[in-house]
Amino acid sequence: MLLAEISGNVNVIGYGIAALGPGIGVGLVFAAYIQATARQPESAGLTRVYMFMGFAVVEALALLGLVLAFALQGGS
Amino acid sequence: MLLAEISGNVNVIGYGIAALGPGIGVGLVFAAYIQATARQPESAGLTRVYMFMGFAVVEALALLGLVLAFALQGGS
Amino acid sequence: MLLAEISGNVNVIGYGIAALGPGIGVGLVFAAYIQATARQPESAGLTRVYMFMGFAVVEALALLGLVLAFALQGGS
Amino acid sequence: MLLAEISGNVNVIGYGIAALGPGIGVGLVFAAYIQATARQPESAGLTRVYMFMGFAVVEALALLGLVLAFALQGGS
Amino acid sequence: MLLAEISGNVNVIGYGIAALGPGIGVGLVFAAYIQATARQPESAGLTRVYMFMGFAVVEALALLGLVLAFALQGGS
Repeated sequence: MLLAEISGNVNVIGYGIAALGPGIGVGLVFAAYIQATARQPESAGLTRVYMFMGFAVVEALALLGLVLAFALQGGS
Repeated sequence: MLLAEISGNVNVIGYGIAALGPGIGVGLVFAAYIQATARQPESAGLTRVYMFMGFAVVEALALLGLVLAFALQGGS
Repeated sequence: MLLAEISGNVNVIGYGIAALGPGIGVGLVFAAYIQATARQPESAGLTRVYMFMGFAVVEALALLGLVLAFALQGGS
Repeated sequence: MLLAEISGNVNVIGYGIAALGPGIGVGLVFAAYIQATARQPESAGLTRVYMFMGFAVVEALALLGLVLAFALQGGS
Repeated sequence: MLLAEISGNVNVIGYGIAALGPGIGVGLVFAAYIQATARQPESAGLTRVYMFMGFAVVEALALLGLVLAFALQGGS
């Protein structure tokens, strides 16, 4: 007797949502850096460290979701 | 008898949604700082503290979701 | 006896959401590069490396979702 | 005995979400190219290759969702 | 014995979401073309081909969702 034909793991949905925001956020950071560098090339060195910092803290949110998807397996 | 083939933990979905907003929000903060610093480099020191403050309070929302995902385990 | 006529795998939903953010984010990065290059053609070489870097780290978020959709199969 | 009158395959939902982000992202890339070309027609040749590159990598995210919808059929 | 009064097919939801992103994306492409043409009327011929190209590849994402909604019928 089969009660459900849907299979899968909702943790993948969880990671997917956790990757949604950072996917947009990291894009915003890099887009801002590209436009700022193109307009003021002399500011490239000044803002580069903040681009990497912003990229790191935003990307970390998605990677935490990846860790969580493995850490909280169902039925445990 | 198999009642459900879907496994996983909805807490991961919860964290994912909690990371969605901050992922975009922190990206907005850093993007604004990069563009502002490139246009007025002399304002970098003045606005830096607010960039970190904005980053901290927004990122905290996602990290609270991470804590909550572990604190509120199902069936407990 | 059929209790559910819905079939499928929720991992596809998970990948779909994981592709949503990067789909917008990579678009933002390329849009910024195109507009910046058109306005300051001499900056094309300076910002190209950051366009590819931004594209890579954002696209990786979606590809991690693709890997996760296969790694976390249901019922495991 | 029929317990559910809802039919369908959740993989279609998964593809739908996977098409959402690239739908916006590809639109952003083309919109940026059109506006950049209209403002600086001499840059059209320089940025055209990046428009196609951006279009390809973003559209690929949606097509991967289409492949995944067929690869991960339910009940497997 | 009827346990569920909701009927329908989730594939329609899937197509709906698949139409969401391209709905915005095609709007972005046409909006950019209209604004660019209004500002630089002499560029209308140059960018028209890209408007149609952008429209076609974004619209295709939604049409693929329509095809998929028929291809992946429930219970199969």
